[in-house]
Amino acid sequence: MEKKPFVSKEKLEEIKKEIPTPFHIYDEKGIRENAKRLKQAFSWNKGFREYFAVKATPNPFIMEILQEEGCGFDCSSYTELMLSDRVGAKEHDIMFSSNATPDQDFELAYKLGAIINLDDFTHIDILKDLTGIPETISCRYNPGGEFKTSEKGNVMDTPKDAKYGFTHDQIIEGYRKLKEYGAKRFGMHAFLASNTLTNDYYPVLASIMFKTAVEIKEKTGVSLSFINLSGGVGIPYRPEQEPNDIMVIGEGVRKAYEEILVPAGLGDVAIYTELGRFMLAPYGALVATAIREKHIHKEYIGLDACAANLMRPAIYGAYHHVTVMGKENAPCDHKYDVTGGLCENCDKFAVDRMLPKIDMGDLIYIHDTGAHGFSMGYNYNGKLRSAEVLLKPDGSFKMIRRAETPQDYFATFDFTEKYNFNK
Amino acid sequence: MEKKPFVSKEKLEEIKKEIPTPFHIYDEKGIRENAKRLKQAFSWNKGFREYFAVKATPNPFIMEILQEEGCGFDCSSYTELMLSDRVGAKEHDIMFSSNATPDQDFELAYKLGAIINLDDFTHIDILKDLTGIPETISCRYNPGGEFKTSEKGNVMDTPKDAKYGFTHDQIIEGYRKLKEYGAKRFGMHAFLASNTLTNDYYPVLASIMFKTAVEIKEKTGVSLSFINLSGGVGIPYRPEQEPNDIMVIGEGVRKAYEEILVPAGLGDVAIYTELGRFMLAPYGALVATAIREKHIHKEYIGLDACAANLMRPAIYGAYHHVTVMGKENAPCDHKYDVTGGLCENCDKFAVDRMLPKIDMGDLIYIHDTGAHGFSMGYNYNGKLRSAEVLLKPDGSFKMIRRAETPQDYFATFDFTEKYNFNK
Repeated sequence: MEKKPFVSKEKLEEIKKEIPTPFHIYDEKGIRENAKRLKQAFSWNKGFREYFAVKATPNPFIMEILQEEGCGFDCSSYTELMLSDRVGAKEHDIMFSSNATPDQDFELAYKLGAIINLDDFTHIDILKDLTGIPETISCRYNPGGEFKTSEKGNVMDTPKDAKYGFTHDQIIEGYRKLKEYGAKRFGMHAFLASNTLTNDYYPVLASIMFKTAVEIKEKTGVSLSFINLSGGVGIPYRPEQEPNDIMVIGEGVRKAYEEILVPAGLGDVAIYTELGRFMLAPYGALVATAIREKHIHKEYIGLDACAANLMRPAIYGAYHHVTVMGKENAPCDHKYDVTGGLCENCDKFAVDRMLPKIDMGDLIYIHDTGAHGFSMGYNYNGKLRSAEVLLKPDGSFKMIRRAETPQDYFATFDFTEKYNFNK
Repeated sequence: MEKKPFVSKEKLEEIKKEIPTPFHIYDEKGIRENAKRLKQAFSWNKGFREYFAVKATPNPFIMEILQEEGCGFDCSSYTELMLSDRVGAKEHDIMFSSNATPDQDFELAYKLGAIINLDDFTHIDILKDLTGIPETISCRYNPGGEFKTSEKGNVMDTPKDAKYGFTHDQIIEGYRKLKEYGAKRFGMHAFLASNTLTNDYYPVLASIMFKTAVEIKEKTGVSLSFINLSGGVGIPYRPEQEPNDIMVIGEGVRKAYEEILVPAGLGDVAIYTELGRFMLAPYGALVATAIREKHIHKEYIGLDACAANLMRPAIYGAYHHVTVMGKENAPCDHKYDVTGGLCENCDKFAVDRMLPKIDMGDLIYIHDTGAHGFSMGYNYNGKLRSAEVLLKPDGSFKMIRRAETPQDYFATFDFTEKYNFNK
């Protein structure tokens, strides 16, 4: 699939006058349309809800858009809970899924009335002692073994090595215990593979979970109220990759639902999802300016952005497509390493990438940074994290996070006389 | 070499009462002794100076200690320059080595009178136009090819793929040009391998640079005033690894110096180093508390620290030794994954590690986090970065950075009404 920027060069030039590069920009129109498609794909399930994985893009203005599209929020920490609360999420608008969970995080989740998704069998008693068991409660399932989408399929991930969740026997015993402790409404959650590019992932995962739900009902009398398929539906970072078809995925889950849950008298189970990447990645981009070029043993273009703004290429060698704005139709006849300025040789947004000739001042558009982009940013080498900008459906734009300043960077020295940079 | 904590369990318990875990702790005594050893190892060179790589541990209280030991500072960014200035470094107390360098960084380095180490041939004219060429100037050399410590040795790194520096021909031409532009005092810098565990790295690197210096003198008439061996001297993260012997390293560099530079009439070249890891890594530790245990397909211990506090194990699979405080002599008969609470399965400080039985509340001491530990921290999953504590030679302690608060995390929304968490 050809990768095209969702914003024009002219618009970016206009934004740059007000908000210097680098910045992340998000496409409200794309976000809304995609959220609507997801909802439609699962419209056969009357309780369906997407809980947006806040960790992917923890920006309240993005969260407001998703909230308007009917999404709840999946939180993994204290600050994500605070943010969801401030956005206006109420009680079951929030799912709280965390591991090695600190007491204070459990306490805030309980106080907000969030649906708590317990990561571990031991957390049942921890939560009981800490806050009491809420009426609605969820458990995270880890079936162990290897995850494949078919008998002969490739191993997509190895749940047996994952730190998350209850084992099979623990989850059966867990629901029994939770029921005994007074819980009334139960859910189950599982996450078995990340960034999958197959329409089979959710349906196969759903089958495993649905069968387990039937077993839970038989063995404990607990009828689950919701099943949370979590995240894992990916996006094509490379132009040659085939995107998932969310309508096909929704239909695949429906089929499993009707084959497994309905006959077992579990036809009113709500399906939840906790997508982050799928909801946001393609609808965000990192916009930078080419500021340096060097011609040594290879050809390099240096940007004003670096891994502080987008870490995935540096640490995972992840591919992000690059467009040189205004040169979309020029021949890709130059081979470049496109780098950031960190003193780390891995700080390269692209390696040996064929691109049009880049001139200093060119705007460089790095695709698919809408999820796990800004949120994974750091301050290594004393670099500052960038602003975030929202492109609205009417073509206007709005700053939705300001860039960091040196004062932010030095804030945790503000208790000192000499190193308080705010004075 | 057996790995022992530099602080007692009792002291950590005392600190924890005032500064909750997790925190990084630094050993002032160890830092000073090591800095003195380095100085001694190069005492044969009258101009020798270590420029501490601020990026490793950008904390002004640590920098003050190193300053007292005679070190200057190697800065790579605007904020590192600001910090060095605030610590009191003056002019040539600072080396500025950066790549894809923004104009404003060059301008601040020039204003502070720092020694600017140009990363690229094109930067000569950029700097000339921006600020003028300072009297003292340095160039970064990248010889290309592969780096080995001997003809038949293992490839330690591949400079030909590194984004840094001038090629051989460019550096010759560069000094010519800089001289023509009025520069009076010249230096050379090269960084060819990272975290090396061999006493040969610096001597072999020095030989390459010394020979190049002789060639530069012959071809351009420029006699270098200093040669900066940069960083790259590593530390043994694993107990079974042999540490470098800095005295042997210093002696190896002296030998090359006397064989190559002295006969060429370059016997007054000052040697500079830019060590970060070697100066700090072993003298810092991340101290966390075991807060959760789980028994599923593997045995897990969950800490109150996570990759936000120390990223190296999560992203590089890097080994950091772990000591369970108070159980130093207990048998290591339990196999654990020691995890942080990020929703990332790679957020594990140790995998399949044999350790004594860990009880909830145990203090977990993660070794060798003094460099590229705190400084690589991020806020993924909305997690907050920790405090830093200095253990003084007299056994007292001092907080040298406070922990982040949610207000810090949300600071870049302070321009809004609704999402200003400081109100």
